[in-house]
Amino acid sequence: MRIKLIIIFLIGLSLISQAQNNPNNTPLLNGNNNQRNHLLIPNITGFITLTGDFHTHTVFSDGEVWPTVRVQEAWEEGIDIIAITDHIEYRPHKTYLQGDHNTSFDIAQIEAKKKNILLIKGSEITRGMPPGHLNALFINDANLLDKTDWKDALNEASQQNALLIWNHPGWRVQQPDSTKLFDIHKELIANKRISGIEVANYTEWYPIALDWCITNHLAVFANSDIHEPIQQVFDRSVTHRPMTLVFVRENSLDGVKEAITSARTIAWFDKQLAGPTDLLAKLVKASIKVGIPFYRTGNEETDVKYFEITNKSDFYFEFFNDSKTNGAPQKFSLQPRKSIIVKVFKNERTLKCTLTNIHTGMNQNLTIDLLKR
Amino acid sequence: MRIKLIIIFLIGLSLISQAQNNPNNTPLLNGNNNQRNHLLIPNITGFITLTGDFHTHTVFSDGEVWPTVRVQEAWEEGIDIIAITDHIEYRPHKTYLQGDHNTSFDIAQIEAKKKNILLIKGSEITRGMPPGHLNALFINDANLLDKTDWKDALNEASQQNALLIWNHPGWRVQQPDSTKLFDIHKELIANKRISGIEVANYTEWYPIALDWCITNHLAVFANSDIHEPIQQVFDRSVTHRPMTLVFVRENSLDGVKEAITSARTIAWFDKQLAGPTDLLAKLVKASIKVGIPFYRTGNEETDVKYFEITNKSDFYFEFFNDSKTNGAPQKFSLQPRKSIIVKVFKNERTLKCTLTNIHTGMNQNLTIDLLKR
Amino acid sequence: MRIKLIIIFLIGLSLISQAQNNPNNTPLLNGNNNQRNHLLIPNITGFITLTGDFHTHTVFSDGEVWPTVRVQEAWEEGIDIIAITDHIEYRPHKTYLQGDHNTSFDIAQIEAKKKNILLIKGSEITRGMPPGHLNALFINDANLLDKTDWKDALNEASQQNALLIWNHPGWRVQQPDSTKLFDIHKELIANKRISGIEVANYTEWYPIALDWCITNHLAVFANSDIHEPIQQVFDRSVTHRPMTLVFVRENSLDGVKEAITSARTIAWFDKQLAGPTDLLAKLVKASIKVGIPFYRTGNEETDVKYFEITNKSDFYFEFFNDSKTNGAPQKFSLQPRKSIIVKVFKNERTLKCTLTNIHTGMNQNLTIDLLKR
Amino acid sequence: MRIKLIIIFLIGLSLISQAQNNPNNTPLLNGNNNQRNHLLIPNITGFITLTGDFHTHTVFSDGEVWPTVRVQEAWEEGIDIIAITDHIEYRPHKTYLQGDHNTSFDIAQIEAKKKNILLIKGSEITRGMPPGHLNALFINDANLLDKTDWKDALNEASQQNALLIWNHPGWRVQQPDSTKLFDIHKELIANKRISGIEVANYTEWYPIALDWCITNHLAVFANSDIHEPIQQVFDRSVTHRPMTLVFVRENSLDGVKEAITSARTIAWFDKQLAGPTDLLAKLVKASIKVGIPFYRTGNEETDVKYFEITNKSDFYFEFFNDSKTNGAPQKFSLQPRKSIIVKVFKNERTLKCTLTNIHTGMNQNLTIDLLKR
Repeated sequence: MRIKLIIIFLIGLSLISQAQNNPNNTPLLNGNNNQRNHLLIPNITGFITLTGDFHTHTVFSDGEVWPTVRVQEAWEEGIDIIAITDHIEYRPHKTYLQGDHNTSFDIAQIEAKKKNILLIKGSEITRGMPPGHLNALFINDANLLDKTDWKDALNEASQQNALLIWNHPGWRVQQPDSTKLFDIHKELIANKRISGIEVANYTEWYPIALDWCITNHLAVFANSDIHEPIQQVFDRSVTHRPMTLVFVRENSLDGVKEAITSARTIAWFDKQLAGPTDLLAKLVKASIKVGIPFYRTGNEETDVKYFEITNKSDFYFEFFNDSKTNGAPQKFSLQPRKSIIVKVFKNERTLKCTLTNIHTGMNQNLTIDLLKR
Repeated sequence: MRIKLIIIFLIGLSLISQAQNNPNNTPLLNGNNNQRNHLLIPNITGFITLTGDFHTHTVFSDGEVWPTVRVQEAWEEGIDIIAITDHIEYRPHKTYLQGDHNTSFDIAQIEAKKKNILLIKGSEITRGMPPGHLNALFINDANLLDKTDWKDALNEASQQNALLIWNHPGWRVQQPDSTKLFDIHKELIANKRISGIEVANYTEWYPIALDWCITNHLAVFANSDIHEPIQQVFDRSVTHRPMTLVFVRENSLDGVKEAITSARTIAWFDKQLAGPTDLLAKLVKASIKVGIPFYRTGNEETDVKYFEITNKSDFYFEFFNDSKTNGAPQKFSLQPRKSIIVKVFKNERTLKCTLTNIHTGMNQNLTIDLLKR
Repeated sequence: MRIKLIIIFLIGLSLISQAQNNPNNTPLLNGNNNQRNHLLIPNITGFITLTGDFHTHTVFSDGEVWPTVRVQEAWEEGIDIIAITDHIEYRPHKTYLQGDHNTSFDIAQIEAKKKNILLIKGSEITRGMPPGHLNALFINDANLLDKTDWKDALNEASQQNALLIWNHPGWRVQQPDSTKLFDIHKELIANKRISGIEVANYTEWYPIALDWCITNHLAVFANSDIHEPIQQVFDRSVTHRPMTLVFVRENSLDGVKEAITSARTIAWFDKQLAGPTDLLAKLVKASIKVGIPFYRTGNEETDVKYFEITNKSDFYFEFFNDSKTNGAPQKFSLQPRKSIIVKVFKNERTLKCTLTNIHTGMNQNLTIDLLKR
Repeated sequence: MRIKLIIIFLIGLSLISQAQNNPNNTPLLNGNNNQRNHLLIPNITGFITLTGDFHTHTVFSDGEVWPTVRVQEAWEEGIDIIAITDHIEYRPHKTYLQGDHNTSFDIAQIEAKKKNILLIKGSEITRGMPPGHLNALFINDANLLDKTDWKDALNEASQQNALLIWNHPGWRVQQPDSTKLFDIHKELIANKRISGIEVANYTEWYPIALDWCITNHLAVFANSDIHEPIQQVFDRSVTHRPMTLVFVRENSLDGVKEAITSARTIAWFDKQLAGPTDLLAKLVKASIKVGIPFYRTGNEETDVKYFEITNKSDFYFEFFNDSKTNGAPQKFSLQPRKSIIVKVFKNERTLKCTLTNIHTGMNQNLTIDLLKR
């Protein structure tokens, strides 16, 4: 059915909402369809926290969905920003598809307006290693990126004031034995041609790339690089797609671009967070609440005080207690929207923990003192 | 195992947290156990919103769990207040149990302190109809309620400054054909002997009791009356137990008592809310956020504007659009922590809706204008 | 990424299976992706039970996914047969897509072979009412159906030995006030030009169409008519898409065609089943197991016997007890892969129930005697 | 409510089934309560496969639930056999409870008959290490086990023809540094006084104990040792409690006793299975179905054949491909009730895999050739 009448279906409404005049047409109940997830991700002082996926594909390159689907999926998952980044050099469906490198963005843009999604015009410059694959974001005209020499493509991107992101630097196909920087990447970084690197892509992550970002003050990214319908890979009932948290001064495309240029991003993938220490510290502080002790035992020898830690966010936290003598357990975890009770000895003034799933470097994690206010 | 060593298990910590020195003892991963649900229930202006279950049973009457379990269950479910209300007159396990009418409270109290739960001392005065079953809450000594004449029991409760709640007024066993007020109830209400009535109990609700509460300015209650382990009846993966929302000036037992006396409660059961109009209006206002229109179509004949409604709470909302000509759908729903997009004609200034799952009376529902700020 | 290397990804394998030589490429755990659901649907005597969805769309008409996605989705959901049935007359994406009416089938076919899915070549003849929309299934060349007069299109389908199915007969857009047979449909049925009718489509069902099928010995169908990625409408964590159960003599396209021609199908949508009495009776018999009484109470007055009913299938059953005096409850239900215990008076020899969710006609339901063997 | 009228609630029926004469009593929909899980666990040649939990506690020792709850929980979870094994020496609730060591069994027995659960009379002989904790199963009179010297207790158990199981041999409290056999255990084993050992208990497992069982031909056990309401630790929506699979000749207590004595058991905990090679091989064979190749690619160099592996059971399987050159992936997994497609080179006749989650010894796993029939 549908035929031009799709316009009568009000987007975002439950399927049971349809009027029912025809007594022999019985609507059935359905699931949670067409409702947007309200992610619990706090703002941090001075900035609005937006969620983005800066790497997605459609049928116009080697993806499997129409461009509008990328917008619908993002809306349902609670994502604020997406980039359509079809490959410039690889378009296996082109036998069947006409349209140029701008077409997928143009189609998605109409849907993005109706869904209040920030849509970034992008393209994936898709070359052998080096330099590998790079996303050009905030471009004006993707067709002009279609060059024989990748350097010309990068120059064109710069001409358009685009930002360049190095994608999946540890992808086995291009880095079978190690995840390393080629001289070309060092040069691009040194010359400030690259604004960020994916530390997580699809279902994998590259710890060393986090060090590169921190050292060079580049934005970290976690992107889905999705080709399939999103739930075929990232089932919402058990996980979320990799996302990049962007800390913006204003909720707009310009705001997003400024934040990336300033490296104000955090990568969120599976249960992990990765990024600069200061941003992660602020995000954790805004996400969890540590209560004052509410109960003390009366036994002098083993006297302990109890306090509660509440996770108001959708993030997950794993704590490793850095002391063995404070009475608290060695390891504990805190799930999204849960709280736990922790006991420490009455006279403890500090409870220093390492957050083992929150990465500030390849071999470094955020630390926090749960008793310090 | 366990034997006295239970003290070494830190409450509220994930099971994976156990130290692991013994290489032939391998802990397994587990579910969401021992983490407290952080319910998304907003405060309203001037008041803190607490959640309570004012009707529970233990093995000391005809329940099936040790009193501490009621505290653990409440803590995990995110409930702030519970009352232990074992039957005075019905104690089928008494062959096996010694202890008086205060014992279940005394046992639970120790656990309540460790879990930061407000525990109310109560008892269920359990008689034929009339007067049926009444909970005496905030009592000092349950043993003194054990009287031959129920009037003496009620008098004793008053002596102890207890509050009386009429339980499950529509229970089929006592009201097989209709849910009605007996003269005795009218008299108790007229004399202000009853502070509240259960409009929902276990798996059923009694719409007419809502009218009685509203008319007589009594507190509404939704309570579990649970005898089994709570998840045997209310599986947390699909629902929640009936709860009473209490709007307190201070987070304490006194604060709760004052709120009930002032009838500042709302009943929350399954997907329904029931209570006084003003409280419900404030709760809904604090729970949902209506955005300004973010998109307008350009077609003059069918021009519409799009706006988003976000549900920041754990409540569920069903809207019935009171107009047929404003371009919005007749019915739509909004699930917990979701948002939807609604379209109306460009020139609409109002979008009056009836909230069909939010009850202000037996045949009355809350109304709201989604476009009025 | 992906680029031609997709071939290295072994289909159907968990994402954690990737070799891991590169130490800075860390795979993350994921959900249930890429595993096919093993539906619990029993065979019936003499026939293999297959599941089919005979109505799906792709980007080549007004759908939103590449044809291969329809095969992947069916595979994951546990469906054995699908038909690709893009509209002949409505191809809103044709500005961007080249390819004729056979293209979507040709693309899907390669994937179907790799997934062991029976793929039926089809097209949806898409006209105003009457005759409305009809699926031509088992066609050879869809291009020849592109005719000005719908009668010519139907004749061409017959030429190709295709089967014709009348789609969504109660669709409000074409049947705003009632679900009725137009003269044209009566004629098509009388002349045996139509092999079946959809009694369920997308999220609705048409009870009267079931009567038409039974009266005229036509195959009943429940089809998804899906345009979106399937999980956007039918989230696997809460429901399944409408499916048609086909009782075949052999597991092949010919077997499916023979079964449809012989009207050996049942429609399965949400929690409902609809179809001919004999097939439903056999299916229910193969799905549930009624145990012999395992316990009898000793009290002479109220003596009862207990027995267990086990649902070995993925179907859902709702029972209405036709007697009020046999001691069993008036209503009870049996969920997929669950069993229940039922009590009846000791001397009962029958327990006649109406299966209120199993439809043998518009106002008729299957009946069963749970105590008769 | 409830008061003696509990008898009117028919066990095992959905809550929506209650008759509804009182118009102001509105039942609400509920979850999956009161339906028994139909576990998909195949029989093996010559034996019926039963599921059991041989270690549970009630309020009569240090548990938190009334004995009937243990039966209800087992019924709902799909378990066939449970033992009530309250501690003889540790009864912290005895201030409040009267009743002897047989009371918890006597109370549970009534419920077990109504639920068709095999209930074993047991007790946990609870001593320091050595010998630690031992379950006496199939006893006649628990009171006679209450002896000062544990040897007398064990002798009394033998007098009653009970079977003795050594519980949680690696429990950190009693084995802080290693999991080892004390001389006393060696002697008990040598003298055939012990019939089995728990290789899994609560949330942990002890690989070395599997070797002890295999070497000495003792029955392996996985038991919950549950004290809490079961779902507080093992949430059915994400996991199952540890269970012991028992391969019986007849479905009766005698049948269970004979199977344990003959060491015909398998431990099932979380996603793991552990036990004797021959039983595991038969169980896996009965659980999965390997199809014949259904598709071959035509490309000569990389020619592969595709085949499907179907998991008909509720078990989980992890495969490690023992060859690196057969074209199949190195690792793959198969979830409960799912199937996967695997590719191997056309000329392969074997696909030897190690089942890494199926343990035949501390450092040994079951192997299987997926292509051998």
